[in-house]
Amino acid sequence: MHRQVEPIPLQQVKISDPFWNHYLELIRKEVLPYQWRALNDLIPDAAKSHAIANLQIAGGQAEGEFHGFVFQDSDVYKWLEAVGYSLATHPDPGLEALADQVVEIIAKAQQPDGYINSYFTIAKPQERWTNLRDCHELYCAGHFFEAAAAYYQATGKAKVLEIACKFADYLVEVFGTNPGQIPGYPGHEEVELALIKLYQVTNDERYLKLSKFFIDQRGQEPHYFAVEAEKRGEIRRHAPPWSDHSYHQAHKPVREHTSAEGHAVRAMYLYAGVADIAYYTQDRELLETCLKVWDNITRRRMYITGGIGSSAHAEAFSFDYDLPNERAYNETCASIGLFFFAHRMLKLAQDSKFADVMELALYNGALSGISLDGKRFFYVNPLEVWPEACEKRNDHRHVKPTRQPWFGCACCPPNIARLLASLAGYIYTKVDDSELFTHLYIGGTAELTLKGQRLAITQESGFPWDGTVKLILNTASDLDFTLALRIPAWCQNPSITVNGEPIDIKSGFEHGYVKIQRTWSNNDRVELEFPMQVALITANPKVRANRGKVALTRGPLVYCLEEADNGDNLHNLIINPDGRFEVKYKQPLMNKITIITAEGRRELDNWGDVLYKANTEPDTEPVTLTFIPYYSWANRETGEMLVWVRKQ
Amino acid sequence: MHRQVEPIPLQQVKISDPFWNHYLELIRKEVLPYQWRALNDLIPDAAKSHAIANLQIAGGQAEGEFHGFVFQDSDVYKWLEAVGYSLATHPDPGLEALADQVVEIIAKAQQPDGYINSYFTIAKPQERWTNLRDCHELYCAGHFFEAAAAYYQATGKAKVLEIACKFADYLVEVFGTNPGQIPGYPGHEEVELALIKLYQVTNDERYLKLSKFFIDQRGQEPHYFAVEAEKRGEIRRHAPPWSDHSYHQAHKPVREHTSAEGHAVRAMYLYAGVADIAYYTQDRELLETCLKVWDNITRRRMYITGGIGSSAHAEAFSFDYDLPNERAYNETCASIGLFFFAHRMLKLAQDSKFADVMELALYNGALSGISLDGKRFFYVNPLEVWPEACEKRNDHRHVKPTRQPWFGCACCPPNIARLLASLAGYIYTKVDDSELFTHLYIGGTAELTLKGQRLAITQESGFPWDGTVKLILNTASDLDFTLALRIPAWCQNPSITVNGEPIDIKSGFEHGYVKIQRTWSNNDRVELEFPMQVALITANPKVRANRGKVALTRGPLVYCLEEADNGDNLHNLIINPDGRFEVKYKQPLMNKITIITAEGRRELDNWGDVLYKANTEPDTEPVTLTFIPYYSWANRETGEMLVWVRKQ
Repeated sequence: MHRQVEPIPLQQVKISDPFWNHYLELIRKEVLPYQWRALNDLIPDAAKSHAIANLQIAGGQAEGEFHGFVFQDSDVYKWLEAVGYSLATHPDPGLEALADQVVEIIAKAQQPDGYINSYFTIAKPQERWTNLRDCHELYCAGHFFEAAAAYYQATGKAKVLEIACKFADYLVEVFGTNPGQIPGYPGHEEVELALIKLYQVTNDERYLKLSKFFIDQRGQEPHYFAVEAEKRGEIRRHAPPWSDHSYHQAHKPVREHTSAEGHAVRAMYLYAGVADIAYYTQDRELLETCLKVWDNITRRRMYITGGIGSSAHAEAFSFDYDLPNERAYNETCASIGLFFFAHRMLKLAQDSKFADVMELALYNGALSGISLDGKRFFYVNPLEVWPEACEKRNDHRHVKPTRQPWFGCACCPPNIARLLASLAGYIYTKVDDSELFTHLYIGGTAELTLKGQRLAITQESGFPWDGTVKLILNTASDLDFTLALRIPAWCQNPSITVNGEPIDIKSGFEHGYVKIQRTWSNNDRVELEFPMQVALITANPKVRANRGKVALTRGPLVYCLEEADNGDNLHNLIINPDGRFEVKYKQPLMNKITIITAEGRRELDNWGDVLYKANTEPDTEPVTLTFIPYYSWANRETGEMLVWVRKQ
Repeated sequence: MHRQVEPIPLQQVKISDPFWNHYLELIRKEVLPYQWRALNDLIPDAAKSHAIANLQIAGGQAEGEFHGFVFQDSDVYKWLEAVGYSLATHPDPGLEALADQVVEIIAKAQQPDGYINSYFTIAKPQERWTNLRDCHELYCAGHFFEAAAAYYQATGKAKVLEIACKFADYLVEVFGTNPGQIPGYPGHEEVELALIKLYQVTNDERYLKLSKFFIDQRGQEPHYFAVEAEKRGEIRRHAPPWSDHSYHQAHKPVREHTSAEGHAVRAMYLYAGVADIAYYTQDRELLETCLKVWDNITRRRMYITGGIGSSAHAEAFSFDYDLPNERAYNETCASIGLFFFAHRMLKLAQDSKFADVMELALYNGALSGISLDGKRFFYVNPLEVWPEACEKRNDHRHVKPTRQPWFGCACCPPNIARLLASLAGYIYTKVDDSELFTHLYIGGTAELTLKGQRLAITQESGFPWDGTVKLILNTASDLDFTLALRIPAWCQNPSITVNGEPIDIKSGFEHGYVKIQRTWSNNDRVELEFPMQVALITANPKVRANRGKVALTRGPLVYCLEEADNGDNLHNLIINPDGRFEVKYKQPLMNKITIITAEGRRELDNWGDVLYKANTEPDTEPVTLTFIPYYSWANRETGEMLVWVRKQ
């Protein structure tokens, strides 16, 4: 039987949380204005974006040539989408006025048939849809659809949705297997999940069908990318490593996928869309595909930070258990994509394994992409950094030891902005109008209706610093429903009380959630205690990079050593797994964070100029190791960083 | 005071040694004939060489176009050089007839002015000497000079030397700082050391001076490579990483060099030439340069195998202590070059640190380049191999887990052939006609004159399997001289007897050699015992790749684990440093080799499909580790290999 699963949308959830307020303010007050200036080429030190200018030129509002990547438009859309999310909970007339300007610019850039893409409109008007594999037209369309849905939902202004639907209607005509239609699909997935958002807003099933069409066509023979390449007369002197189309997840039909291959962000966007289609069309085969790929990622190809994509080359998944720490790619956008995929999986199955990974990717692999002041970013998120190697070794060239203001290919900064701005929409899910799931412990208030009755929940949360959570229900009259509370996988000894009375966690435990079914009254109080112990994590014996090493976690956070606290040559530090760990709050260091100190030893660098010695043990001295949360590294001076620490 | 240092040349030394006989026979019976067929494009599975054909076309003996690299000629010269060495000790009329054919081909390819280079003669006759940086004309010239010297010394046939001198005389005219001369130097060093070989054969000081000229010009301002590039109108869209000329060791004048930079083979060939010039011209400044660079390499940039060049990109040195095991480049030719450099340093200073590295590079980093049957080769010699990563990771693309029959750029196979064929020339050195140094313990007979008197030494050696060495002197009448015997750095407790009487090693110990000065009589017998203990080697604490790991050596050999003996997942094997080691001879496995077994544990791969676990210790089982000599790996089925083993 198909369950009706409805995430409580961010319009109904207001975050008020000691940890996240800081970021949400940063997004509103720093990131979005900063990105606006970046999109308008107003930041002196940063690479020029040209993104707004391109759309203005395409709309006849300015003269000039197209500049930037073929997907440059998408930066504008991601910004607009983030603005939509931000306005949904924090009205800001100034920001809204800017966004309205952008909508006007997009409206003018739209061609009479509905098509929008500044690159093709300006530079290659005759070549529309001739290279779906590389040219990102559908990718940009997707980001616009997401933006349109978000901005419409936030403001109720119809114009942006009209523009989007006109574009989508045009796509419905262009793509398909009927004569004259294009039987292709995008090289960079995104439009699949975006069409579903448009469907959610409009209820127009044609958008759902088009999304499913793109998914079903992918990887079929004759291979569309080969056919279109031949039509273009393409000659490739050197076949790229993805000549089997796995780079684009098109190496075989999606229903036959069993592992995550190719470009990690593309893969995540694809499977997020696939999961959506599986949900809306009750397609068990696609659900099975999603589960297989999910397992492959989380059991064999994911860093402990929720980072994915262990190969810089092609920004891609490599193979099972290949997780080098210092050469990881781990694009910020890939962790964000994993978060999106996880959230869609939660609609298919209310299993905490999905929410656990959402939490993991959020607090670690994604959040590490933005500095504490919201002004600088990481595109790549390795688990070990040796600055000299980043500078001097070609195989570390992709790793930056310092955060950068903006990027030539600026996908990550706006992506993290839209994720954080929409965070409120990922906390709760209502199932079959009778169960309310809490996936993330983030303080704030949610308002919803359940069984026709208004219900409000106020959450207070100490996450990620401590595991004390309080939920207070506000309801006009008593209401019988099930409250399902995620027990984080990292928590060994949770306890829950309702109005002070302990709950038997085991009895109501199902797929990682404690289900409390009862008649709830106004002001009922649920108190959760998830003790956050320092945990020493070991990696699967097949993971070569982490032999003899452990990583420290506490609650949802992965920790790391940074040179600023521990000196250089972090590889010479050895943790004592049986030693004492102290958890301390530290205010003056960056923002308030929890640090962990541990007992250990340092192998002394007292050899002098000798490279090898026989039958000797390195001298050591006792030392206190200081760990900081992984996401907070690289906010002080440039230096080494290390997640996996030697234990002997 | 300048000491007269004369290596006993290979014409006077006949190797007869249980270990090396096998290789010398392989070179004669397999490698040289195989390479001859390869040079003539007669090997079906291998990439075509075109090398002989190119020279025939250049000489008007055939029609066609040039094929291959600009340095393709050098493969022919390296073959001819090896043939010369082989004929010096093992006459072979068939081989000599082939070599004479080659000399004729070269003679015809020589232009009227003396110039020889098939690429420029065939394809770019107008562009001679317009791109010294990239086009390898002087590199090829150098290899021809080395070949000519070797073949002339072996056969006494003057023709090849006449061709070489005509070419060298032409170079003497072309290069210099006088008007109309070219003030440049080669991008790939080689001609420097080769001109010295020509000088050694001819006593023509102009060749010595030209060599010194090339060295002194290198890296001076205005920078010759920049000047010639501008003259060519060169436009480079992407500046290569060596735009500071360090790739070519031309980032500053040679006398200012303090570290090994850039392409490792080029660097070694350069410094071998620099050391020669320092010796012949008594140039203390160049000697200091060599010592600084030597120390930088051997104390900070050399793998335990004598491999050098830790970066695949540019086949280059990277930076101090950056020695990744699985991504090492360690070109076979670079270890051979290090051997050459070390041998030249021994002329400047009779210090065993140079001979120790000669021995190390010979038995490990160089010998690993050739299979036990002499038919397949490694270009790249990493210290850790994970075949799946070699196949699937772009940053391992240079690492081949299986030996290859020949290479498109076939520098390594002929290089190892010429090294092994000339090995007899590296064993002994006579100093000031009063001291005879033994650098390498290789069985055979040397005949020389000392103080005008004929002396023969017969050496029997158990190297590299055991450290028992016997020297028997043969002299017509008593002779007063010093016998200097290297005490290998790896040997902790050597003992020496003369005619059964123990020698006090400490009293005669100087710079790593025991000097026995006495009046030697016919049939005097020196017996040396260098006990070969299994040693556990630790790397300097600054070497990140080797933390918590040890490598096993025994005598001159570095050992490794191979999957064929130990199963896969070698990273899960842990050696017990305090356990018992057993040394065994093993005949049926490949050739007769010494293997080492050690006590250890295996971390069990019993996790199932879980990637991370909290607060757990991996299960282990006791296991016997089997180590084989590093050079002998990859002679069975394809699999993993590991030098640095976890000790905990």
